[in-house]
Amino acid sequence: MKSYRKELWFETPHRRDYINITSAVDQCLKESGIKEGLALINAMHITASVFINDDESGLHHDFEKWLEKLAPEKPHSQYQHNGFEDNGDAHLKRQIMGREVVVAVTNGKLDFGPWEQIFYGEFDGKRKKRVLVKIIGE
Amino acid sequence: MKSYRKELWFETPHRRDYINITSAVDQCLKESGIKEGLALINAMHITASVFINDDESGLHHDFEKWLEKLAPEKPHSQYQHNGFEDNGDAHLKRQIMGREVVVAVTNGKLDFGPWEQIFYGEFDGKRKKRVLVKIIGE
Amino acid sequence: MKSYRKELWFETPHRRDYINITSAVDQCLKESGIKEGLALINAMHITASVFINDDESGLHHDFEKWLEKLAPEKPHSQYQHNGFEDNGDAHLKRQIMGREVVVAVTNGKLDFGPWEQIFYGEFDGKRKKRVLVKIIGE
Repeated sequence: MKSYRKELWFETPHRRDYINITSAVDQCLKESGIKEGLALINAMHITASVFINDDESGLHHDFEKWLEKLAPEKPHSQYQHNGFEDNGDAHLKRQIMGREVVVAVTNGKLDFGPWEQIFYGEFDGKRKKRVLVKIIGE
Repeated sequence: MKSYRKELWFETPHRRDYINITSAVDQCLKESGIKEGLALINAMHITASVFINDDESGLHHDFEKWLEKLAPEKPHSQYQHNGFEDNGDAHLKRQIMGREVVVAVTNGKLDFGPWEQIFYGEFDGKRKKRVLVKIIGE
Repeated sequence: MKSYRKELWFETPHRRDYINITSAVDQCLKESGIKEGLALINAMHITASVFINDDESGLHHDFEKWLEKLAPEKPHSQYQHNGFEDNGDAHLKRQIMGREVVVAVTNGKLDFGPWEQIFYGEFDGKRKKRVLVKIIGE
């Protein structure tokens, strides 16, 4: 069994952002030399997500509006978590969008349907944060 | 390390449907010959889910009502994604219900608690769509 | 390839509770002797979750309030699932919070960012329930 590990770093200009990381994960898979196995891609921070959905700007606008409806940022005082912080909403948004994805590796490729793209979802940005890529297989 | 891959195809008669795919995944596991490892089961489309919950029709009715409350289909115009499409809600519903499950394989069986059943959750059906089953182990 | 399996048992005093299980999973990893691989940690019951977030009591209070807003327990009669049961809400809350996490194992350790902690989220407690830890690798 082979294993591969890499961290991808991000610093988004806005509090909330969606970044397509599919090609970066593809590059990791090439570096790994793994042909058959599983790839785990997870946020290493608890106010961010990794998820798979469509690379379509209208949808990303819909995510922003929808997540603000389900877990609004303001008023900050609505969350007990916000004693010394202001990111209570980000911890909740990340639960909706998920921490991680696991992707099949087949014939040396990410085994995806036609529209699947991997995103880093940032909910408390403007600072350096990381995603972990771990691949195991042969 | 062994690996196994299969696609399961679905074409649901309704826009939204829940299909129990546990026995189909069980059959894949038997075909694979893998006794110890991990099984990944994921929707290959971004408007569908694979999740584990109860095989109880009342609950599935509750899912329908609840998801329509959290991410209503109509009016279609409420979603920017719906310029040429009408499935913005399906992309959101899928985030709540999840893209994938990872299931332990132990002694050649899906290592489940007493009520765990795997479902394909369709949120934009009436067309052919796929689920990927990937199993690795020994 | 090595594989390891253990069940962790819980009986929470309240209907809903959050229990930090990171050190128990760490102990499993030590017992397994696995240095490189993937660890799956999943609820074996469909009214409970395993998730990764912050070990902060204010946040756990926010989870309680937020989940009650998105999928309220009462009135029990609002859920068709509640014919002979009263836990319809727990099946929905578990979808938001997730069934499982997959964690990278690197150099014999859970490969975590600075604040990642694993929680058992109970939504229908006061009875014995289980979490499965399955680790594969070398």
